[in-house]
Amino acid sequence: MPDRIYNFSAGPATLPYSVLQQAAKDIVNFQDSGMGIVEISHRSPGFAAVIAEAESLLRELLDIPDNYKVLFMQGGASSQFFMVPMNLLAPGKKASYLNTGVWSKKAIAEAKLFGEVLVPYSSETGGFRKVPDPGEYQVDPASEYLYLVSNNTIYGTQYQKMPVAPANVPLVADMSSDFLSRPVDVTKFGLIFAGAQKNLGPAGVTVVIVRDDLLERAPASLPTMLRYQTHADKGSMFNTPPCFSVYMVREVLKWLKNLGGVAAIRDINEEKAAWLYQIIDEMPYYRGHAETASRSRMNVTFNLPTPDLEKKFTAEAASLGMAGLKGHSSVGGCRASIYNAMPQEGVRTLADFMRRFAAANPV
Amino acid sequence: MPDRIYNFSAGPATLPYSVLQQAAKDIVNFQDSGMGIVEISHRSPGFAAVIAEAESLLRELLDIPDNYKVLFMQGGASSQFFMVPMNLLAPGKKASYLNTGVWSKKAIAEAKLFGEVLVPYSSETGGFRKVPDPGEYQVDPASEYLYLVSNNTIYGTQYQKMPVAPANVPLVADMSSDFLSRPVDVTKFGLIFAGAQKNLGPAGVTVVIVRDDLLERAPASLPTMLRYQTHADKGSMFNTPPCFSVYMVREVLKWLKNLGGVAAIRDINEEKAAWLYQIIDEMPYYRGHAETASRSRMNVTFNLPTPDLEKKFTAEAASLGMAGLKGHSSVGGCRASIYNAMPQEGVRTLADFMRRFAAANPV
Repeated sequence: MPDRIYNFSAGPATLPYSVLQQAAKDIVNFQDSGMGIVEISHRSPGFAAVIAEAESLLRELLDIPDNYKVLFMQGGASSQFFMVPMNLLAPGKKASYLNTGVWSKKAIAEAKLFGEVLVPYSSETGGFRKVPDPGEYQVDPASEYLYLVSNNTIYGTQYQKMPVAPANVPLVADMSSDFLSRPVDVTKFGLIFAGAQKNLGPAGVTVVIVRDDLLERAPASLPTMLRYQTHADKGSMFNTPPCFSVYMVREVLKWLKNLGGVAAIRDINEEKAAWLYQIIDEMPYYRGHAETASRSRMNVTFNLPTPDLEKKFTAEAASLGMAGLKGHSSVGGCRASIYNAMPQEGVRTLADFMRRFAAANPV
Repeated sequence: MPDRIYNFSAGPATLPYSVLQQAAKDIVNFQDSGMGIVEISHRSPGFAAVIAEAESLLRELLDIPDNYKVLFMQGGASSQFFMVPMNLLAPGKKASYLNTGVWSKKAIAEAKLFGEVLVPYSSETGGFRKVPDPGEYQVDPASEYLYLVSNNTIYGTQYQKMPVAPANVPLVADMSSDFLSRPVDVTKFGLIFAGAQKNLGPAGVTVVIVRDDLLERAPASLPTMLRYQTHADKGSMFNTPPCFSVYMVREVLKWLKNLGGVAAIRDINEEKAAWLYQIIDEMPYYRGHAETASRSRMNVTFNLPTPDLEKKFTAEAASLGMAGLKGHSSVGGCRASIYNAMPQEGVRTLADFMRRFAAANPV
């Protein structure tokens, strides 16, 4: 194997090579302290600067207003599935969920433990091939919030127009798989969360961006660690944070800022995705799973003429240094995850291979 | 600063240098895969082997019987403070807690959200200078469990004889700060948990060892992520685990096994601690915080004649490459955390410095 391959995994996913090289130094000796970044106290000035810079870079890159808290938490997006309703959905109240895939279904199941759940839209019967347009559903204005998953890794769908909630109904978004891949108007959301392991860093940290006023909704009986307020009050340092993951987030954010920020990466991501969708549109050999208007710029899902050809395709790609192209088991086929850190050269290499493979393996 | 100093921080704490050097390689290119350990899918054979080996090494080192599950979880020990009663303490039932410091107090506060909490022993009025002998308290046999903190980082106390619970009352132990520092008879416990960032690895993963039959106690209404059963059923892979932290745990466990296991490290830890306690016993200049019978082999807490001398002591030590010797703010004074990965040479260097400092700075 070469020193570096193209890793198209859905997550944990490829990270910027320069970040990995910096981490290799810092893990042994951080800032010439004689200690590795994984060894320093979370209360030390060294780590305090790391977490503060991670937050300020995130605020800068996403233009997060002052009335939003930025939290670094543990437990993955899966823990947010219950923490959102636990903190925001009081007993006897209701919340609305847009059901666009496995992750929204899991979130719906957890929310039902806390209150009434309305599902004004679901694309399940159609195989989750699309996300809705704002006009396709009606949200009960008595909802405590409207919940959405901005990008669906398994099906390769993504909102290109964000849902709009009725007045006074905050939007809550699971942005785990397209966070920081494009500009987002944070002021339109009450709460945004994202597991790190796609665009943000390694697994082990989840970013939560939450509007101040929502912190007060939590019932008094919640365990300390399960209240957003606890973590907001202590700058994500109520207990020992996942220091290394937070450090890596900072490094990835520095990399993204140097690259020009979210608008710049959006343009790159649009270009990368377009190369693959162009092939899918031009060559009947490849069939896209997602409906055109709902296509994800992060996860490109497609089928080949037969399952055997799909198997040959992923194996041959792997032998050429393109890993992780097998689709999720619940959908089958192929999937190319092309997150922020996937270089353009990697996508071009894949696109060339797709053309060559179709020519070499006619049906 | 030299390439490597002696880091006496209470946690996150020093890790074996050879582990850091291996991690520096694997973070860029894991097993010649062309991908870093932080980039590979948690469902890949490569990571599956990592988490499986981490578990099997832990089972081997602690001789964990088959009727115990080993879980790798997130959220720190602080999350176990509520997860233990949430899973094990049904409404209307009671649990008993031995109160030996800040961490047991926090655990007691969380448990009170779920049921009745009895505190048959507390050393709080004495400044938490000791842990109890088995004869010093009586446990209500109707307790759902008896909870203890095996080592108290802040005060430098540690059970040298473990508490014994009445028949059918499982022992639950927070072993965060002395896990793997000495042999433990796992069969005497119902549940053991430990945050990694002392003896086990970097912050971001918590090990839970739980006896099978206790998994069934959880009420049906718990969120999926908050049931031990969920993680037990899926081999800690219900959702994306904190992959890098789990990888680091495996590396630390390999290091510990090569070194001879927990019995060997216990002997080394006893020796290291004895060097410092000998000074405290011999020189009135240093006053130990913990009562002799309760002294911790992990955290040696002591005072100098005056706060000014303590300040000078920690500053001078730092300039000589011995960091993190300041005591916890709630106790003051000095604290030397000498976990498994603190080399004997580091403790000898500190002991020599203590003698020199006392001679050079008479009262």
